[in-house]
Amino acid sequence: MSVYVVGHKNPDTDSVTAAIAYAELMKAKGEDFIPVVQGELNPETVVVLERFGVAVPETMTDAAGKKVALVDHSDLAQAPDNLGDGEVVAIVDHHKIGDVTTNNPIFCCVKPVGCTGTVLTQLYNIEGVAIDPKVAGLMLAAILSDTVNFKSPTCTDEDKQAVEELKKIAGVEDTDGLFMDMLKAKSGVEGVPAKDLLNRDYKDFDMNGNKVGCGQLELATLDQVADIREDLLNAMKEQKAAGGHHTILLMLTDVVKEGTDLLVVSDDPALIEKAFGTKLEGDSMWIEGMMSRKKQTIPNLQKAFGC
Amino acid sequence: MSVYVVGHKNPDTDSVTAAIAYAELMKAKGEDFIPVVQGELNPETVVVLERFGVAVPETMTDAAGKKVALVDHSDLAQAPDNLGDGEVVAIVDHHKIGDVTTNNPIFCCVKPVGCTGTVLTQLYNIEGVAIDPKVAGLMLAAILSDTVNFKSPTCTDEDKQAVEELKKIAGVEDTDGLFMDMLKAKSGVEGVPAKDLLNRDYKDFDMNGNKVGCGQLELATLDQVADIREDLLNAMKEQKAAGGHHTILLMLTDVVKEGTDLLVVSDDPALIEKAFGTKLEGDSMWIEGMMSRKKQTIPNLQKAFGC
Repeated sequence: MSVYVVGHKNPDTDSVTAAIAYAELMKAKGEDFIPVVQGELNPETVVVLERFGVAVPETMTDAAGKKVALVDHSDLAQAPDNLGDGEVVAIVDHHKIGDVTTNNPIFCCVKPVGCTGTVLTQLYNIEGVAIDPKVAGLMLAAILSDTVNFKSPTCTDEDKQAVEELKKIAGVEDTDGLFMDMLKAKSGVEGVPAKDLLNRDYKDFDMNGNKVGCGQLELATLDQVADIREDLLNAMKEQKAAGGHHTILLMLTDVVKEGTDLLVVSDDPALIEKAFGTKLEGDSMWIEGMMSRKKQTIPNLQKAFGC
Repeated sequence: MSVYVVGHKNPDTDSVTAAIAYAELMKAKGEDFIPVVQGELNPETVVVLERFGVAVPETMTDAAGKKVALVDHSDLAQAPDNLGDGEVVAIVDHHKIGDVTTNNPIFCCVKPVGCTGTVLTQLYNIEGVAIDPKVAGLMLAAILSDTVNFKSPTCTDEDKQAVEELKKIAGVEDTDGLFMDMLKAKSGVEGVPAKDLLNRDYKDFDMNGNKVGCGQLELATLDQVADIREDLLNAMKEQKAAGGHHTILLMLTDVVKEGTDLLVVSDDPALIEKAFGTKLEGDSMWIEGMMSRKKQTIPNLQKAFGC
């Protein structure tokens, strides 16, 4: 009976490539393991699979009656449906320990590192199985993605070591270039309507009785949106008029320069300037070091709005 | 802040020695790990610690406010009290995946092998840490105990490999002898009242309206109880009279010969003979291959009683 190797719902690059890499490891050990995904791939993952010439795995969303190996998660909410009617036979992950339980002893390897690809690289080494260059490329890409090219606080020395090993096997010299290609794919804006870009990652907040909206676009470079700034501002104005907002913001975050160009449409621009201690130039302000809506933008706004 | 390494409640040899061995591994890596136990040691574990000259770990039953590493279990019910008010920082185990969850990524290594000692031996090798001869002896004893000297269906090739490696480091040539010493300690009957021996591992069952009791003593040799057979039978008769049982059985299981001398006190001895397809000789019958009350004795009785 085949074992289906599957990452979490809303698959990202690590979930997809880890399924492929773990299945390959087990196949090398003579086991019948098949990588699958729970849904459509994001643009970054599509670019990664194309780059290393690996086919997109089949889709599987229901575990009933199946043997499954979970990668990149151990939570029931992120696992395939009806997991209780299937059998989990292995877990390889790098997140907190979730609520998946089993009726029998299984192989479970979780490490507090930046990426499942790092755990898998170590498992290949422990098992003494040579890593296929294509698979090495996939795991390499996953580590760069999950650690934001080593900049994430989750990145460890073990992740860096794995990248050093994998880049040689995959024949990738310029890992920065690979990361940029992935980032551009992830942050692709070409041909996407401004309204959709504004709402790609958008949330409304109540600030002391005022409705404040904030969207964020993570970009490899601000050049990607240079030609559509007016369109974005118009989309923000329309959304503000329709929603009765006090303020709508759009964070154009440059992941490489590590800062945000903040587009502002507000009934009280001076309050927004006060919130971030920066003057508007036209409809926007550059805020050095601002990367996180949750940890930086919203707390500053709440303070200014007296929440 | 120290990390307390702890096995399950009612500690057995694997739980105690795994706590010591994992703490030693982490200490070798420069970490402050302290082995603890959740309760009194059983006679087998006492003999093992004495044999290899290792002190009994301190007792710890409450995890509140502490960092803990769990060995030989991943179930809340088997973990120290108030685990939710502490922090689990690592898990090393060989059982089914339990219901312990964490808020952060941790190290978790579970393998479907016969003993936590086997997993730990592999972790020492992966980390490149030399195993102290005393600690090797402890892990060796744990593997022999958990795999019933390789006879348990849970025993794997990895357990056998670990034993081969550990016996050299520990300087133990006669692993059968070590196992027998442990078994004798575990199955010690000297000076114990017959009534207590009958009830050491005893359960009552309802068999189609009839009350049937069954105890089991695992022995290294039947010689251990040769002088107290009459005392045991009398204890069974007393218990039967007091409890209104249809039948009370006591399995004297010879772990080495892999069979059971079944003591029988019953209102219907012929029915018991029928259940096991064997004739009584006096008050007992030898049943070749009978080792498990749950899997062998009780199902045969249920069939005979028409359950």
